[in-house]
Amino acid sequence: MRPLLVTFVGGQSGSWAIERVEPVVGASLEPASRLEVVEGEAATLSDGKSTWVLRGVTSNDRYVSQLEHAVLVAKQESLGRATSTRAALIPITKSDAWWKLPQDERRRIFEERSHHIAIGLEYLPAVARRLHHGRDLGETFDFLTWFEFSPAHANAFEELVGRLRETEEWAYVEREIDIRLVRDQSN
Amino acid sequence: MRPLLVTFVGGQSGSWAIERVEPVVGASLEPASRLEVVEGEAATLSDGKSTWVLRGVTSNDRYVSQLEHAVLVAKQESLGRATSTRAALIPITKSDAWWKLPQDERRRIFEERSHHIAIGLEYLPAVARRLHHGRDLGETFDFLTWFEFSPAHANAFEELVGRLRETEEWAYVEREIDIRLVRDQSN
Repeated sequence: MRPLLVTFVGGQSGSWAIERVEPVVGASLEPASRLEVVEGEAATLSDGKSTWVLRGVTSNDRYVSQLEHAVLVAKQESLGRATSTRAALIPITKSDAWWKLPQDERRRIFEERSHHIAIGLEYLPAVARRLHHGRDLGETFDFLTWFEFSPAHANAFEELVGRLRETEEWAYVEREIDIRLVRDQSN
Repeated sequence: MRPLLVTFVGGQSGSWAIERVEPVVGASLEPASRLEVVEGEAATLSDGKSTWVLRGVTSNDRYVSQLEHAVLVAKQESLGRATSTRAALIPITKSDAWWKLPQDERRRIFEERSHHIAIGLEYLPAVARRLHHGRDLGETFDFLTWFEFSPAHANAFEELVGRLRETEEWAYVEREIDIRLVRDQSN
C-alpha cells in the first residue's frame, strides 16, 4: 500500500533487452542495450556502468473515480505474466501549463475530453501496466509508464499508444520517449 | 513551478525556536530546541547534530478546483512576512483506508463534507501556509504543513486547527504532531 520506488537502469546488464529507444517529443536518451527494473530502495546499484537511471514511485490514483477503479480492477491483470515477453517503458514530462491547471480541469482534459481511462480499458487485460511518478522526486520525467504484453498483442499496443497520442491531453506532453523491450528468456 | 524539496531539521540550531512538540494522534517526536527550514537539495546539512529531519515537496494541488484556486490566490499572502513571528509545523500521516479511496471520494470527504478549503479560507490572509508532500518520498509523514502568523492571530490559528480536527477528514489521520515555533528576532 505504501508507494513503491522503482528504478529503471539502462546499461549493459539486466533481464530485458532494449530493442529501440525512440524520441517521440523532445530529446532522446543515450542508447543502451539492456534494462534492469529494481523495486525498492536501490542505493547500491550493482555496477557503475549504467547509461541512465530513471526513478519513479507507484502512488495513489490521481484521477480515477470509484466506478472507474472498480472496472479497472475487474479487468486488469498483473505484471510478470509468463506470456508477457514484450514491454514498453514510456517516460513523459508534461508542460508547466498542465501542472498549473487545477485538479478539476486536469480531470476534465484527462478523462472527459481525452478518455484516457476509457481507451486504456479497451486494451485490458492484454496490456498490463504500472504508472510511476517522478516529478515530486525531482526527476526529469514526470511519469514512467511500464507496459507488458505478449507478442500476439504487439499490434494492439501500437494502436493504444497511437490513440493516446492524438488526444487533447497529449498536447501537454513536452517530452516523450518510447523504449521497447524483449524479455531475455535465458534469465 | 517545479516541486520544491523542503527539509525541516529539528536540533540545536536554526532560526526558529521550538516552543513545544505535542503529539495529537500517535507517537511524538524527540524534543528539540530549534528548527531550521532548508529549501532545495539539502545533501550537506550543516551539522550532524540534528534530532530529526522531516522532508516534503511542494507539489501541484490535488483537490482544489478552478474556482477555489482563484479565491485562494486572491486572499492568501506569502510566507516570510515580517509580522509572522509565530509558526506551526504539523506533520500528518493518513491511514491506508484514506489512500485506498479513489480520487472523487477523497475530494468529497476533503471538501464537500469536511470543508477543508472553505474553513482555511476564513483564516486568510492572517494565516499563511505551505503544504509539503512526503508520502511519495518514502517519508514517515504523508504531509508537513507549515503555518505562519502574527502573535495577534494566535487564537485564530488555534480555532482553525481545532475546527479541522473535528472534521470527517480527520478520522483518517492516524498520526499527527503539533510543533509550535517562535522566530528568533536576533537572526
